[in-house]
Amino acid sequence: MSAKYRKIVLAKRPNGWVQEDDFQLVEQPIPTPSAGEVLIRTHYLSLDPYMRGRMNASKSYAASVELGDVMVGEVVGEIVASERPDYTVGEFVAARLGWQEYALSKGDGLRKVDASRLPISTALGVVGMPGVTAWVGLFEIGEAKAGDTVVVAAAAGAVGSVVGQLAKKHGCRAIGIAGGAEKCAYVVNELGFDACIDYKADDLAGQLSAAAPNGVDVYFENVGGEILETVVAQLNTFGRIALCGLVSQYNATEPHGFRSLGQLLSKRIKLQGFIVGDHLPVWPQALAELSEGVASGQIRYHETIAEGLENAPKAFIGMLKGANLGKQLVKLI
Amino acid sequence: MSAKYRKIVLAKRPNGWVQEDDFQLVEQPIPTPSAGEVLIRTHYLSLDPYMRGRMNASKSYAASVELGDVMVGEVVGEIVASERPDYTVGEFVAARLGWQEYALSKGDGLRKVDASRLPISTALGVVGMPGVTAWVGLFEIGEAKAGDTVVVAAAAGAVGSVVGQLAKKHGCRAIGIAGGAEKCAYVVNELGFDACIDYKADDLAGQLSAAAPNGVDVYFENVGGEILETVVAQLNTFGRIALCGLVSQYNATEPHGFRSLGQLLSKRIKLQGFIVGDHLPVWPQALAELSEGVASGQIRYHETIAEGLENAPKAFIGMLKGANLGKQLVKLI
Repeated sequence: MSAKYRKIVLAKRPNGWVQEDDFQLVEQPIPTPSAGEVLIRTHYLSLDPYMRGRMNASKSYAASVELGDVMVGEVVGEIVASERPDYTVGEFVAARLGWQEYALSKGDGLRKVDASRLPISTALGVVGMPGVTAWVGLFEIGEAKAGDTVVVAAAAGAVGSVVGQLAKKHGCRAIGIAGGAEKCAYVVNELGFDACIDYKADDLAGQLSAAAPNGVDVYFENVGGEILETVVAQLNTFGRIALCGLVSQYNATEPHGFRSLGQLLSKRIKLQGFIVGDHLPVWPQALAELSEGVASGQIRYHETIAEGLENAPKAFIGMLKGANLGKQLVKLI
Repeated sequence: MSAKYRKIVLAKRPNGWVQEDDFQLVEQPIPTPSAGEVLIRTHYLSLDPYMRGRMNASKSYAASVELGDVMVGEVVGEIVASERPDYTVGEFVAARLGWQEYALSKGDGLRKVDASRLPISTALGVVGMPGVTAWVGLFEIGEAKAGDTVVVAAAAGAVGSVVGQLAKKHGCRAIGIAGGAEKCAYVVNELGFDACIDYKADDLAGQLSAAAPNGVDVYFENVGGEILETVVAQLNTFGRIALCGLVSQYNATEPHGFRSLGQLLSKRIKLQGFIVGDHLPVWPQALAELSEGVASGQIRYHETIAEGLENAPKAFIGMLKGANLGKQLVKLI
């Protein structure tokens, strides 16, 4: 009898907020790699807001997860068996293997992780997809340059925390938006943003105009809803909105109706949706800058770590509600 | 006693739809140019949708017209007296002189019009600001290229009619949206668009998917509201929206709430507001192509001409409601 491993599959599609019983834990035998395959044991699973979209039947920017299929997601794991010359047992890789303890891979999309330089978990956060998302949105889409005022929503999260630190590093004024005094204190005191606005407190518009007296040039949007309306009202002429996420909308049954299109026209603003996977040519440049920044201590990060695959659904729901600080991970071993 | 001339000033700010009594006709003596000035007699006055925004106290992309000031607008007129060496009596110029029969100018922003080549009225339409607006929105903002499917709202209007013809000239599929069977017939039969959708008929979405079986790559937006939602639903991944106008919103007291931001994200769409005055470096290139196209007959145009300055308010209101075909002008002499 072979040993078993656990994976989490999509059991049903959520209607509004995700529930834990939308997922199901399944056991099955650990497979053996065939020629050309490696077997990877997951150490950390990444939880990210985009995954909510994959749970819907409606078209997202990638295919939905089918009912009964393993939930999608990045992991960092260790090669535990290899039938490929290019991967050795004991090496670490980042890969899109989903919510499971083991998986086979033919090598497609694996990215080797140097475990001697930085903690391997950073390959899922600040030196991984979320960090590169911050880099691409800020520079490629937002066209941020020294002297700009940059505002980022979900500033205490895995992406937003990097956006503001990169903005500061490049000579911008960085303003975060986060939920609650504790997160805002973290964003300013630990991450070094110039200011942070608490969207759970009163008078978002007044807080923003105090923090951005010269208006806003770049808005890195992760949230949507009324926060977007408030920021757009204070965007400068020729402002840019890098549309990375709309987390306030992912569990809404009725979408927010955006009322400020007239301002995008009158102020000649660019609003552009993007996903980081479309920008593969700049990944090496972005990862080099992020890796260097983390190694030197110039770029800081925080991780919120749940323990055990069985706790992934609860941690995922918590992240969608903003319970995490920094990168939300699940540690499997 | 000096001779008098007439001008139209803004008498009050509209609340919702413009009314004729928002304007007032005023008479005053024809001035004499001082050193460095020319006196211009208006032949044609241009009426354009953007003017509606200037009637509001709220910030548009340029200063509002103050109560009692002459309404803004482009004219083409004749130099009738000159105290400048660079302008000769009898020459024609296009200029932003407003709704009046005569005006002085120090030469700022005058553009000489070659009356021997094309009718002078075209300097206000197809070979003027509206034509260049079409060119800039299609190529600079919309990034249209051969093989793209381009959709343009208000396709029978001064800007939209040029958008589709330029799109065809550059190897795109051109689809117009216009109000009514007569305008649609004009757009297809006279202007040579591949198809035209009648937004006053049923099933806009079905009409569009029939006309654009491969989806839409570029949407040149002049209208807003539900038409925008319908087109966004059929935009392809990496589609572009050149946001030129929102005429359905200019007289609305409550703005339309745009529900499709999630699609801009999932399909990585760029939506960008623009005005043609920000793109002065490309005007010569655009005017050269438009002028050549009109002279050769490749680019066609239509004018709806009201007679007499006193009829400008009525013609302006009609244009906002879509009563015009092609460029709306007022002929003063």
